[in-house]
Amino acid sequence: MTRGPDKQFDTEVALEKAMEVFWAHGYEASSLSELLKSMGIGKKSLYDTFGNKQSLFLKALEHYAHITIRDVRARLSAEGSPLANLKQLLKDWHGVNSRSGSCGCMFGTNIADFNTEDEAIAKVMRGYLQQLEDVLAATLTRAQAQGELSVEANPRDLARLLLCTAQGMALLSRIMDDDPTLDGALAATVSVLSHS
Amino acid sequence: MTRGPDKQFDTEVALEKAMEVFWAHGYEASSLSELLKSMGIGKKSLYDTFGNKQSLFLKALEHYAHITIRDVRARLSAEGSPLANLKQLLKDWHGVNSRSGSCGCMFGTNIADFNTEDEAIAKVMRGYLQQLEDVLAATLTRAQAQGELSVEANPRDLARLLLCTAQGMALLSRIMDDDPTLDGALAATVSVLSHS
Repeated sequence: MTRGPDKQFDTEVALEKAMEVFWAHGYEASSLSELLKSMGIGKKSLYDTFGNKQSLFLKALEHYAHITIRDVRARLSAEGSPLANLKQLLKDWHGVNSRSGSCGCMFGTNIADFNTEDEAIAKVMRGYLQQLEDVLAATLTRAQAQGELSVEANPRDLARLLLCTAQGMALLSRIMDDDPTLDGALAATVSVLSHS
Repeated sequence: MTRGPDKQFDTEVALEKAMEVFWAHGYEASSLSELLKSMGIGKKSLYDTFGNKQSLFLKALEHYAHITIRDVRARLSAEGSPLANLKQLLKDWHGVNSRSGSCGCMFGTNIADFNTEDEAIAKVMRGYLQQLEDVLAATLTRAQAQGELSVEANPRDLARLLLCTAQGMALLSRIMDDDPTLDGALAATVSVLSHS
């Protein structure tokens, strides 16, 4: 029995490719044909392995959440000053966003297409945002314990502010490449962290 | 000569209805049939008056930008403390976002569908964001002149931070109704303004 070449595809690589398509265009605008082309597989393989477009999207979101949280956690728990690590992370995110053709955050890109209409997808999105908030809050709490933040600062609320600001910057970066607005927003955020 | 009933429609009202559909679902997910139904007009009237879906969207965006900037300008130039006006605006935005079924900001909802691929649309979006930034910066400059902000504060960068934070909050409100994350982000933003 002969097998079509697409039966032996690497599911991890295919998922990564699907993630990139959804990230760039959002859920609605990502066509099945574009997804299949980018993943290098046929329709049958897609359905056998990932289910329909919606369940593929859910798996791609989970994959994105997993690798992003793992990366953020590693960077923020690196040796040295927690506040310096945090500022560096914000600068690096800004650097990625400022590149021409940047897609911002995969979650931000896709939130608009979903709201809470699909409960499974909204749950993954909320879980991701909650984890990101928790990692940021833990870092700010360590910064406060080391005297880098004043005792009056509220690490949890500051983490929530950073989460919203970072999402807003990622979103705006989609229509503003290399823009003074985003540079200024970053400078003000770093300044707020330095004086909190 | 008899005219179909939809020839006498109010273009302003129809545009408002189109705006609501795009705002709720984003450009891609807004179907022509849903737009026509909501606007209460036929396909021919749509094309005669607004052109195709894309030019209708452009007109709806311009309409949204116009009424939003007018509203923000009026609120921020009201008598009394500029900083108090600004804090109240942020709280009111948060209140609107926190309502169940909130759509956040029409621009944020639609940025993900466009990037800079359509130059005419990107231009309206950038113009709107720039105007919003300018109004916020002018308010913060007045606050500084009245001693409500420290002389070290940078009103322009602070305005840019507020712009990104507000967009991020509006975006996240689409999947988080009545959420402590958004309440906390607002509290931290107000606190930053009080201590800048």
